[in-house]
Amino acid sequence: MAKAAIMGYGTVGSGVYDIIRINAAKLTKSAGEDIDLKYILDIREFDDHPEKELFTKDVNDIINDDEVSVVAEVMGGLHPAYEFTKSLLMAGKNVVTSNKELVATYGSELIATAKENGVNYLFEASVGGGIPVLRPLACCLAANNIKKIAGILNGTTNYILYQMITNSKSFDMALKDAQANGYAERNPAADIEGYDACRKIAILASLASGFEVDYSEISTEGITNITLDDVKCARELDAVIKLIGYAEFFENGKIYAHVAPMMIKNGSMLSGVDDVFNAVLINGDAVGDVMFYGPGAGKLPTASAVVADIVDCIVHKGMSRRIGWIKPRSSIAAGKDDKKFSYFVRADKNADITGFGTVTEFRSLGDENVFITEPMTASEMDEARAIVKTAIRILD
Amino acid sequence: MAKAAIMGYGTVGSGVYDIIRINAAKLTKSAGEDIDLKYILDIREFDDHPEKELFTKDVNDIINDDEVSVVAEVMGGLHPAYEFTKSLLMAGKNVVTSNKELVATYGSELIATAKENGVNYLFEASVGGGIPVLRPLACCLAANNIKKIAGILNGTTNYILYQMITNSKSFDMALKDAQANGYAERNPAADIEGYDACRKIAILASLASGFEVDYSEISTEGITNITLDDVKCARELDAVIKLIGYAEFFENGKIYAHVAPMMIKNGSMLSGVDDVFNAVLINGDAVGDVMFYGPGAGKLPTASAVVADIVDCIVHKGMSRRIGWIKPRSSIAAGKDDKKFSYFVRADKNADITGFGTVTEFRSLGDENVFITEPMTASEMDEARAIVKTAIRILD
Repeated sequence: MAKAAIMGYGTVGSGVYDIIRINAAKLTKSAGEDIDLKYILDIREFDDHPEKELFTKDVNDIINDDEVSVVAEVMGGLHPAYEFTKSLLMAGKNVVTSNKELVATYGSELIATAKENGVNYLFEASVGGGIPVLRPLACCLAANNIKKIAGILNGTTNYILYQMITNSKSFDMALKDAQANGYAERNPAADIEGYDACRKIAILASLASGFEVDYSEISTEGITNITLDDVKCARELDAVIKLIGYAEFFENGKIYAHVAPMMIKNGSMLSGVDDVFNAVLINGDAVGDVMFYGPGAGKLPTASAVVADIVDCIVHKGMSRRIGWIKPRSSIAAGKDDKKFSYFVRADKNADITGFGTVTEFRSLGDENVFITEPMTASEMDEARAIVKTAIRILD
Repeated sequence: MAKAAIMGYGTVGSGVYDIIRINAAKLTKSAGEDIDLKYILDIREFDDHPEKELFTKDVNDIINDDEVSVVAEVMGGLHPAYEFTKSLLMAGKNVVTSNKELVATYGSELIATAKENGVNYLFEASVGGGIPVLRPLACCLAANNIKKIAGILNGTTNYILYQMITNSKSFDMALKDAQANGYAERNPAADIEGYDACRKIAILASLASGFEVDYSEISTEGITNITLDDVKCARELDAVIKLIGYAEFFENGKIYAHVAPMMIKNGSMLSGVDDVFNAVLINGDAVGDVMFYGPGAGKLPTASAVVADIVDCIVHKGMSRRIGWIKPRSSIAAGKDDKKFSYFVRADKNADITGFGTVTEFRSLGDENVFITEPMTASEMDEARAIVKTAIRILD
């Protein structure tokens, strides 16, 4: 019998509770022993909860209880999640989490603390919600040098773009729609400005390389500048615009990463990822392209990944899993010009575009010319900004 | 330093060799120690091989070498692969394999033998080639009761159907094309009759349920009856025809499974799986739908999965992984009529189709009527066969 605790009884926390209770038989089979939920930490009152006796407001109840071996931190935010997690790991307890902000910010330290204390800090749910992706990347692709990762990592922005693409909604209308459906927060900045996707590609790149990729060094652009006209022009080129977290791993150990809207040709696997779904495409030198697809958020999908990590901790009692990374001695971020992309460009019909050299897929649409450039650096595009209305990188 | 051996130096075996040599640094990082290749077993001569001293024709060299801790069985076929694997496991060696026939036939026994001897028998490469799918199913979806699996599990047939769909080739032409490109064997029966996909869905269903699903009890239909006209009619309904390995898990513990051509609406994720690629869609009660996509065959992709299993065995030295199944006390196969499907039907214009009740998507095409039936059992469709030219299940 393994004793567990949940920290934070919000959407994901209540999902973890539900799965532990409803799928108890399956969990016992998977873990090899019963999972007994001993505490739920939350500062709020849950007097009507059928198991209200499990609730506590004091994290020390969990830290000081030698019976508890695994804790799900699903409270979110950096503080006090960081302090609680650190204390729990130092007290010899396994911690699993869906908290991407915490993993992206304090991952190296918490992974090291877990190792020093012979326990695990697992975070499958922090990227891709319910989609199995971090463990497959670390374990199933263990024989590969990872070359490239491209992911649709944020469901809110994918939903907004999908509404623009499929139902020709404006960005503002699509955002309101997302909010009405509970897919976007009232303050949607973390999603639409790309901050959420930035944490996630940082975690993916860190795990793929074994070295912490500092998310603050990742060039991050959201979808707020994408217009319905952009989406329609992309359609003319048989393509869609998606918000992509991108990372490329160079032979010299440097990693190029960005979060930005990118154009994707229809017919490719990522182009078909609609609605709030997420997908992560990973290219390894032996396997080639593999893709993981599924629900990137939501109560039960995310909880599914959290509980799988709980099971993993129980199965691997006393053994440190090789899922993590260390801080590099110096920055491993490649420069923004170390990687060239072709761009999808919209320019005024009168603009002088000869500076772009040989362009392809040229179309005259109304008072605009649209085309695709040769591969160029971000600085080269910055210089050309004055004469373009829109410039969106192409994902190849 | 972990000592390894390869049994069978064919396509996959030489890929395993290449990865162990070329990606040695990455493997050491993943496994936590160097992997030293000590033997390659093959009955053929490889006198020109740069490491010809590794080759042996006698499996006892490996079985009796106490230094060898992990062996990749990539020789294929049932015998002597079964006897070699059994002896190696009993000698306390981990065995990893890409041999789906062996896993589907002797899986329960070899998994049990591994457990009894404190070692592992891992077979990630047996389904989906390089695609991580078995370990994610067993570990990342550990909190889910699996409800349904639908997979494009055979690259050869997917290539043939893709050529029929995209380039309007006849089945015979597409098959010749596949053979010319090395995607199909000279005797293509195992692929085009669905036998290969049958082994793979049996392995997936066994792993998902924890009980051996006897592949000989799975209704298996290949793609040899699919005509270019079928493919074109499907296109009229905005759909494609794919060979699908299907399994559904009932609450009573019974499992319905089949391999058959199925119709899939365009726009769904499986419909976009083109060329020789494979994909497995898994539905779990907590996570919903997740999909794993990638190269389902090929030298390095398949070897990528084999070597990942080697790494896993080294990392989990002395620990039995919970990836496997046992033989059920009695058959768990559901009856063929325990699951209803809607069918895509082509019938002569003069045929009396009133017996199908309320049909949808009705089209008159030339001298035919095409439509989609209400959900019906296999026996109900068998009774109607006399009046239909083609009847293909719909994957919903």
